[in-house]
Amino acid sequence: MTAAAGPARFSINQETVKQLSLTELAETCGKSGIGQVGLWRGPVQEYGLEAAARLVRDAGLSVTSLCRGGFLTAADPEGRRRALDDNRAAVEEAATLGTDTLVLVCGGLPEGSRDLAGARERIADALAELAPYAGERGVRLAIEPLHPMFASDRCVVSTLGQALDLAERFPAEQVGVVVDTYHVWWDDRAPEAIARAGAGGRLAAFQLADWVTPLPEGVLLGRGQLGDGAVDLRRFRELVDAAGYDGPIEVEIFNPGLWARDGAEVLAETAERYVRHVLPEQDLLGPENT
Amino acid sequence: MTAAAGPARFSINQETVKQLSLTELAETCGKSGIGQVGLWRGPVQEYGLEAAARLVRDAGLSVTSLCRGGFLTAADPEGRRRALDDNRAAVEEAATLGTDTLVLVCGGLPEGSRDLAGARERIADALAELAPYAGERGVRLAIEPLHPMFASDRCVVSTLGQALDLAERFPAEQVGVVVDTYHVWWDDRAPEAIARAGAGGRLAAFQLADWVTPLPEGVLLGRGQLGDGAVDLRRFRELVDAAGYDGPIEVEIFNPGLWARDGAEVLAETAERYVRHVLPEQDLLGPENT
Repeated sequence: MTAAAGPARFSINQETVKQLSLTELAETCGKSGIGQVGLWRGPVQEYGLEAAARLVRDAGLSVTSLCRGGFLTAADPEGRRRALDDNRAAVEEAATLGTDTLVLVCGGLPEGSRDLAGARERIADALAELAPYAGERGVRLAIEPLHPMFASDRCVVSTLGQALDLAERFPAEQVGVVVDTYHVWWDDRAPEAIARAGAGGRLAAFQLADWVTPLPEGVLLGRGQLGDGAVDLRRFRELVDAAGYDGPIEVEIFNPGLWARDGAEVLAETAERYVRHVLPEQDLLGPENT
Repeated sequence: MTAAAGPARFSINQETVKQLSLTELAETCGKSGIGQVGLWRGPVQEYGLEAAARLVRDAGLSVTSLCRGGFLTAADPEGRRRALDDNRAAVEEAATLGTDTLVLVCGGLPEGSRDLAGARERIADALAELAPYAGERGVRLAIEPLHPMFASDRCVVSTLGQALDLAERFPAEQVGVVVDTYHVWWDDRAPEAIARAGAGGRLAAFQLADWVTPLPEGVLLGRGQLGDGAVDLRRFRELVDAAGYDGPIEVEIFNPGLWARDGAEVLAETAERYVRHVLPEQDLLGPENT
């Protein structure tokens, strides 16, 4: 192996370095010894699903998750049907890419609605249709609670506790949850929810981004590079470890400042920040090998 | 009485119509039959504390709350001493204005810190010093949980449950909580927390603003006029009513779009929205008189 081995559990979500094309991402990961990527449906579809699956396979990359399905809160039959169709397609795409994890961003309130509880219940109804379908294809639906600032327009599931309340209605191999530090870092109940998720075998994915302020207009693209913000990333890694999670740790940062820079440089920086801020401190003294 | 009587429990927080000077606010309230205002320390100090107290008294206005004390998370002794001094001054100001409620925005993480639990504990330490001081002066400290999007830079108390965990360490007549719909609307545990607050006699204030998107840069000034957003305001009023709260209902909206308009017009609109979106629906059919 010519490239230095990257950190073992590290996975780069392609949106973090979206200035890299899929081909460039595969090449850069190869050179950096990074063996895992999280993919998004848009760029995969653009490249071609089968071709993308071949590309990552040939590059020796594992796909740790596919983002994203979800948006399951439509109240009208037509919107609901479209959402179910789209999620079934997302499951197929995940299976083709060889990942067992489809991340779900569950959707906000329909236009004009103020009924959070009703929207959450429609998600459960949709999961009842999608979960067995996903399970049969070896894909797990991973409910991602989003920060409460997205509750109206993006995701009515705002805490890990709520995500578990939904997931636990279905078999653990069909529906799990995502712990993303950006979304749950503020929540004093997150530690107990992580333990609960681990005990129930529901920890489907662990994602990292840091919390930095001021938030930009629209707040979507305000995520910080690891170590730049307020999140105790190492503690969250310890919490998911203690809950029995030993899967990939995916870094997913939406930040125009990172996108404006050289992608390979951002990838190297991100891996370095991961070692420094996420791994056990003693690993800083020698080669990282966990 | 020459002016039409405004809605009985309605109180206008002066920041909602900050284009109005204190004198203009008192005059406009008089003309509109509005008998209650929430004040802010800055404009009060600018006008002069004693003069402001006289102005509202002469206008027949009740002061429902003073915003704000707090910022109690400093880790250094000097920062901590300054915060305690400032909060004691705020208590005196509240007492002089004749309000029994000092709203606390508790403070974010100190620069470079990632220790949310430690910051929350320092708030408790500060309250231990301030609560008896406030109680002796007939003022209650009202902990306001702020939306989790403010957790790092403004307030590490992010849910009503957390606010109660803090408040309940002290006598109910010394420390209560604020329910502000803007901050808690997303939280599925808010209803049970409201009931808990009511049962413990901790409901010190009830404030209203609506949630609208997209959020502006910095997110502070993104509050919506009542009825423009995603919050089921009437349901929250029913929840606090059911919890035994019968105090003022204060509308506090920070919105540059409202500030750019004629203050009297915004005040009238706000009172009208309050009747339409907050009071029982049957009240829309006749004169509001609860």
